[in-house]
Amino acid sequence: MAKYVYLFGAEKTEGSAKMKDLLGGKGANLAEMALLGIPVPPGFTITTEVCRYYYKNGGRYPEGLAEQVQAGVRFLEGATGRKFGDPENPLLVSVRSGAPVSMPGMMDTILNLGITDRAVEGLAARTSPRFAYDAYRRLLSMYGSVVLGIKDEVDPFHEVMEELKRERGASSDLDLTAEDLEELVRRYQDLIQKNGKEFPQDPWEQLWGAIGAVVRSWMNERAQVYRRLYRIPEDMGTAVNVQAMVFGNLGNRSGTGVCFTRDPATGENRLYGEFLLNAQGEDVVAGIRTPNPISKQAKTDPTQISLEEALPQVYSELLRIRDILERHYRDMQDVEFTIEEGRLYILQTRSGKRTGFAAVRIAVEMAEEGLITEDEAILRIDPAEQLSQLLQPIFDPKAKARAKVLAKGLAAGPGAATGRIALSAPRAVEMAQEGPVILVRHETSPDDIRGMAAAQGILTARGGLTSHAAVVARQIGKVAVVGCEALHLDYGKRELRVAGEVLREGDWISIDGTTGEVLLGKIPTQPSEVVQVLLTKTLKPEEAPVYQLFEKLMRWADARRRLGVRANADQPDQAQVALAFGAEGIGLCRTEHMFFAEDRIPYMQEALVAPNAAARKRALSALQRMQVQDFEGILRVMDGKPVIIRLLDPPMHEFLPKEEKDIRALAERLGLKFEELRAQIEALQEFNPMLGHRGVRLGITHPDLYDMQVEAIFRAAAKLKKEGLTPKPEVMIPLVGHVNEMKVMRERVVEIATRVMAEEGVEIHFKVGTMVEVPRAAITADEIAREAEFFSFGTNDLTQMTFGYSRDDAGKFIREYLERRILPEDPFETLDRNGVGALMRIAVEKGRKIRPDISLGICGEHGGESRSVHFCHEIGLDYVSASPWRIPVARLAAAQAAIKGGKVGVAGD
Amino acid sequence: MAKYVYLFGAEKTEGSAKMKDLLGGKGANLAEMALLGIPVPPGFTITTEVCRYYYKNGGRYPEGLAEQVQAGVRFLEGATGRKFGDPENPLLVSVRSGAPVSMPGMMDTILNLGITDRAVEGLAARTSPRFAYDAYRRLLSMYGSVVLGIKDEVDPFHEVMEELKRERGASSDLDLTAEDLEELVRRYQDLIQKNGKEFPQDPWEQLWGAIGAVVRSWMNERAQVYRRLYRIPEDMGTAVNVQAMVFGNLGNRSGTGVCFTRDPATGENRLYGEFLLNAQGEDVVAGIRTPNPISKQAKTDPTQISLEEALPQVYSELLRIRDILERHYRDMQDVEFTIEEGRLYILQTRSGKRTGFAAVRIAVEMAEEGLITEDEAILRIDPAEQLSQLLQPIFDPKAKARAKVLAKGLAAGPGAATGRIALSAPRAVEMAQEGPVILVRHETSPDDIRGMAAAQGILTARGGLTSHAAVVARQIGKVAVVGCEALHLDYGKRELRVAGEVLREGDWISIDGTTGEVLLGKIPTQPSEVVQVLLTKTLKPEEAPVYQLFEKLMRWADARRRLGVRANADQPDQAQVALAFGAEGIGLCRTEHMFFAEDRIPYMQEALVAPNAAARKRALSALQRMQVQDFEGILRVMDGKPVIIRLLDPPMHEFLPKEEKDIRALAERLGLKFEELRAQIEALQEFNPMLGHRGVRLGITHPDLYDMQVEAIFRAAAKLKKEGLTPKPEVMIPLVGHVNEMKVMRERVVEIATRVMAEEGVEIHFKVGTMVEVPRAAITADEIAREAEFFSFGTNDLTQMTFGYSRDDAGKFIREYLERRILPEDPFETLDRNGVGALMRIAVEKGRKIRPDISLGICGEHGGESRSVHFCHEIGLDYVSASPWRIPVARLAAAQAAIKGGKVGVAGD
Repeated sequence: MAKYVYLFGAEKTEGSAKMKDLLGGKGANLAEMALLGIPVPPGFTITTEVCRYYYKNGGRYPEGLAEQVQAGVRFLEGATGRKFGDPENPLLVSVRSGAPVSMPGMMDTILNLGITDRAVEGLAARTSPRFAYDAYRRLLSMYGSVVLGIKDEVDPFHEVMEELKRERGASSDLDLTAEDLEELVRRYQDLIQKNGKEFPQDPWEQLWGAIGAVVRSWMNERAQVYRRLYRIPEDMGTAVNVQAMVFGNLGNRSGTGVCFTRDPATGENRLYGEFLLNAQGEDVVAGIRTPNPISKQAKTDPTQISLEEALPQVYSELLRIRDILERHYRDMQDVEFTIEEGRLYILQTRSGKRTGFAAVRIAVEMAEEGLITEDEAILRIDPAEQLSQLLQPIFDPKAKARAKVLAKGLAAGPGAATGRIALSAPRAVEMAQEGPVILVRHETSPDDIRGMAAAQGILTARGGLTSHAAVVARQIGKVAVVGCEALHLDYGKRELRVAGEVLREGDWISIDGTTGEVLLGKIPTQPSEVVQVLLTKTLKPEEAPVYQLFEKLMRWADARRRLGVRANADQPDQAQVALAFGAEGIGLCRTEHMFFAEDRIPYMQEALVAPNAAARKRALSALQRMQVQDFEGILRVMDGKPVIIRLLDPPMHEFLPKEEKDIRALAERLGLKFEELRAQIEALQEFNPMLGHRGVRLGITHPDLYDMQVEAIFRAAAKLKKEGLTPKPEVMIPLVGHVNEMKVMRERVVEIATRVMAEEGVEIHFKVGTMVEVPRAAITADEIAREAEFFSFGTNDLTQMTFGYSRDDAGKFIREYLERRILPEDPFETLDRNGVGALMRIAVEKGRKIRPDISLGICGEHGGESRSVHFCHEIGLDYVSASPWRIPVARLAAAQAAIKGGKVGVAGD
Repeated sequence: MAKYVYLFGAEKTEGSAKMKDLLGGKGANLAEMALLGIPVPPGFTITTEVCRYYYKNGGRYPEGLAEQVQAGVRFLEGATGRKFGDPENPLLVSVRSGAPVSMPGMMDTILNLGITDRAVEGLAARTSPRFAYDAYRRLLSMYGSVVLGIKDEVDPFHEVMEELKRERGASSDLDLTAEDLEELVRRYQDLIQKNGKEFPQDPWEQLWGAIGAVVRSWMNERAQVYRRLYRIPEDMGTAVNVQAMVFGNLGNRSGTGVCFTRDPATGENRLYGEFLLNAQGEDVVAGIRTPNPISKQAKTDPTQISLEEALPQVYSELLRIRDILERHYRDMQDVEFTIEEGRLYILQTRSGKRTGFAAVRIAVEMAEEGLITEDEAILRIDPAEQLSQLLQPIFDPKAKARAKVLAKGLAAGPGAATGRIALSAPRAVEMAQEGPVILVRHETSPDDIRGMAAAQGILTARGGLTSHAAVVARQIGKVAVVGCEALHLDYGKRELRVAGEVLREGDWISIDGTTGEVLLGKIPTQPSEVVQVLLTKTLKPEEAPVYQLFEKLMRWADARRRLGVRANADQPDQAQVALAFGAEGIGLCRTEHMFFAEDRIPYMQEALVAPNAAARKRALSALQRMQVQDFEGILRVMDGKPVIIRLLDPPMHEFLPKEEKDIRALAERLGLKFEELRAQIEALQEFNPMLGHRGVRLGITHPDLYDMQVEAIFRAAAKLKKEGLTPKPEVMIPLVGHVNEMKVMRERVVEIATRVMAEEGVEIHFKVGTMVEVPRAAITADEIAREAEFFSFGTNDLTQMTFGYSRDDAGKFIREYLERRILPEDPFETLDRNGVGALMRIAVEKGRKIRPDISLGICGEHGGESRSVHFCHEIGLDYVSASPWRIPVARLAAAQAAIKGGKVGVAGD
């Protein structure tokens, strides 16, 4: 028969840490601890297989389970010398869930199981009536709510107790007498009966009720949401741990607590935690009583009594166990313990959750201590969630705690920002003269760029994590919260309504781009230590311990990664940031933003709608002079490193006015008839601009725009070359879908480059390649590779077209898809391996087959997302390109990918 | 050394018909005829390889060519007993192009080459001065324009001759005397000199000049356009044929003519053609003199003298040769001949161009005569170009010839239509009461359906061959011309401007959907014979010979094809048409059009924006009742045959009003606040509706719409089942991109179907499947096949997303792409094998791997396009689905594909 129950304890232990999938994290760890000789209360684990069986078979248990559970209880009776249901000396057990992946607090737990009306008397006799009835009332309330389902917004058991406390004039649970608690047990039983339920007086019935409740709690809503959030598979299942109770509430030599083997906030190497004397575990968790610190040193208030002072032997035992655990588990542990009359029991240990700061410090220090390898240190840190915390400006935590949270949106650009509300980009620019500004819009568009750059942070009511606002914010390192649908903007009244508040333009607001929170009022912020060292230079490395850890980790990572890391940057200052963060080149220099500047857009417009060829040519010449400066700037900063410049991508209408008055003004300026200009602009409107006349299509039908850009690139490069620098421009053609597009454009680029180089008398090393962003380009990559020296996967557009999702529109249904698990994850956030990824794989294979030395990279937003970076490593790209502020994330993720090799997964899996 | 020159003639023939690629069609045929013993003037062919070499090597000829040409000329001298450049008895030759694929009239020809100022005297002595100078002046004018490039809008040589004729009072060339012609030769030479050129007096120089001109004519503009039109590869090259001249202008026992071995207009099995006595070939082609018929029977005027009468022996020789040619070539031949002093020479034979009617008749009759097999008969007919002519209404040809052509657009719905201009769909409906209407719009949209149905024809200024207008027109069998950019519509003034005309709403206009012509005024039309038999039943089969041929051909085709043929049809009447044309099921029943009817749209709108759940439910119930009738209707017509019903596809905003006044009216009707409704409608607007919230995405977020449709399908089927019929509904989920979408929807459909069948007490055979139209669906077809019982390739959207082309917007640049040969063909017209096709192939393989009995079809517009049908056969689809009027095309194309097997190509290749 299959084995469904595994014993653990000092006497016998059948499992181990290796059996996490079967026994769950908690069960496997308890078994492991027992094997290590750490004092754990004896118990047994019902495997996750039972949970899976249960859901596959309409709520039935597998055959043989009943007998094995019975044998398990017998084992506990032997180990404790107590008997299940015995009126004299009853065995009490806890029943807890324990999934293979930690899901703290998500599922249900029952304690003190085994007490009945008869057994409580025996228990009272052996301990004290107060203890016995306290234990019983706890069982009743937990069983009542968890197993019998008696619950409400306010816990009815809690209400009954509060009422009794009022009657008795008791301020704390501890003020209730044994008689009070006996009365409470009666009232709890009445409450259960009033709800039409019954508390079973057979302990076996109690046990099976509790097992069922734990198994079912796997599918409760909280647990489902948690799994979705942490990408835990639905069919993993939970184990059930049945364990002999030990009691922290047997008087003042008893207690319970939680500790971390290192500080989970800062990572400092010291035992950190809190405990309560004479209490059970949930008292700590529930926060009913304020716990005391474990160590004397951590006291913040002289009235506190630390464990070190209260029970010094237990404290030193805990220090000893901490060493065993860290040596064994080689990670910071989160440990639950109970002290029963001076004897320490460890109830649970697991890797502790930690801040990004702590994660980096613990990993680096453990590696330096020799506890783990540098490889392991690198793998321990989640690049996006943890490492990037080191770059983010932060709110003063106290001030933030006092502020009113108005709403929550999508955390799009990490960090903290505070400023006055500006409801338009021009206003943002204007107001930014006076002080910090938050630009608040329905959504942003390319002509908001200057306003976005001027603002401290960007807040939008619409759009997802790859909306214009989010993408630009990350690229220029702005704090951003997007898609905050609770915002009601009224541009006309210059106000916004949210959470009952009416805020006017100019009012203070704060946004937390790490959590997505929108907060009322002004909250002070400061740049992070790493940023102060690398960018603002307001700190020296030696004054910055966090920077030193960061620097060490990055050094380790760089030594391991195979993928190159480049930046998506359009401007010299962005390129500077990228360099400071470790970029080895520019993977994507977009050129369209360059035309939206106030001094350029008029020329751009003239180039597009000029009334005659001469005017058009004049405008293009003016633009070319400016473009030469643009390219000179970025090539100068990136001297010696490759700079991929993408030729103009957006459709023409984005550069032209939409409002009648602006059209009139433009017509007047260019000497055109208003009606004709309006008709011309209208004719450029498209039903699906995403799939319209843009990119190379424009380059082919309107060649002089591209010609101008290409000439500017080579004029700029020539100038630098003559100064003795080594410019490495690479010209990228966007939106190629057919080899002939690439062929025509490559020939044209080479022709212009050759001419310019001849005129300038220099040789410049350059390449011509394409963005692979149209599905057809991936499918016909072999054909295209004949004409392209590099491919850069534009996975934003490739994802849009492969899924048929417009990222400007899909926000609403994608959210629902994710909630309903129709999509396992947002494909604009994490690269879709099976669809988009399969196309990339095809393109890589076909491209390399034809041109073995083809350079392959990615410049979509996925280039800065860890799991996507891993995939890029796996399919053999040469580099990833990410927004400047994501460069460290990409470097770390690339190192993790290299260490893990082909294996799929993320840090912490 | 490579062989570049192949001889032919009675004495020696080195080539044959098999060497078409090398010798061109004309050269190979001349060789073949020589081998058959048919009298051809001796000559030699310079291979196509020389032409290819010439273009690859910057206009140089391969080494050895000169020597081989010289030897060729020596051969001609031997065969004719004349000498090249000889002043006494000069050898004259013609120099003509001849590509492997016939390109009639596209390239240049020089005749009488070899005459010089000295040789003309010898020639005059041996023939007559008149003949000699006539030949010389012809050479000079041809050489002058073709080789020396002396040409203008009006041919300057022609002008000089006309002037001389005026001076001499001559009404025809024949009235000019030998002296006149000698004078003309002088004037021609003056003309050449005045143009700074010189006519070479060395015949070899003449010969090389002519060879060069012919080779260069391969790249002239006409030839390029022709190749693009007929998809002839650029690098094929042309051969050059140098042949001894024979003269049709040596008096009244000489002549020249063209004949077809069967009637190219009707296909009738009789020698058909025309000739001129005492004339050279180009006189027939140029239409300077009106030719006479070949046979007595064909005389339309008693003053004509047929060849049969004029030269009876030559006539019977021609009849004899005709039999040899048809037996040998097994196809109707287009034969050029010359009679030199009573002796017949065949200059050229090739498969003759023919109308669709002739193509069908010739193929069927030749098969019945045993000349070709039925397979060959099937392969002889181009389904779209020729077979479909048999279905099209036709203009009275004489009336059409008199009408003014206003503009040309894309031929989108074949046939002829005439009617009054209506500039909006409601006006079209209204005006159609009074008489035929042509709906003229910028473009059409789903709410124009009623107007389109009411109109005779549809004319749009924007959009391509798969625009809404084109797709719907083909589906409902309407004549359509789309993307006619010369039209300037002014809805406000209710007028359109084109070609200098201002037409007002109500004016008469005509459109030819076969040619794309837009014509001024009213031109009478009539339905075709096939349509009169099958649909209008106004003719009996036995009265309709064309129908009988059609029917026979279809029978042969059906016996051979492996692909099933279904129809895209939404309505019972369309389904009737489809059945009449041979559909074996419905491959795509779109349901969205059903909601745009006047009596339905209010309910649809209420279902979408109702103020409360009850109202929404009421509206959905009303819609459901109507949908039951819809589905009952179509399932009844298609009894026993599969009917794939696609659930609602378009985004919600398409059903809601856009204009303020309409929104106000709707708000009033539903008791909503105008501002709120407007905001609601605005919130539904999308940047890229193509990639937005539609199809299954809507089905998942708004399940009650799909639920209503699914229930209606099964209620309708149940009703028919109870009547004893065999409904076979198949539910198709649109726009699936991820297996989970399909899973959720399949479960829901099965659940509803099961419930309805239980309630109705019947069992209905049904399937649930998906449209494969999102690239990701193709890539992950293995995953999706687990949940889908059929795939139907929606190649319209699949093409859009694979290329990243919005078909509403891409018209402009696609046209330029085609002209510049960046795209080899319009992917919305012919399936793109390498891109979209590669995705389909992946989907077929992956789908069948997981579900071997999966049903695979195509329902995009490509389902009715021959080359795409061939591809569908090749990748192993089960069926193609086409608009009802394209069904015969699809049947024939499917048979051709089956006959050709895996081989790629089209009829006539």
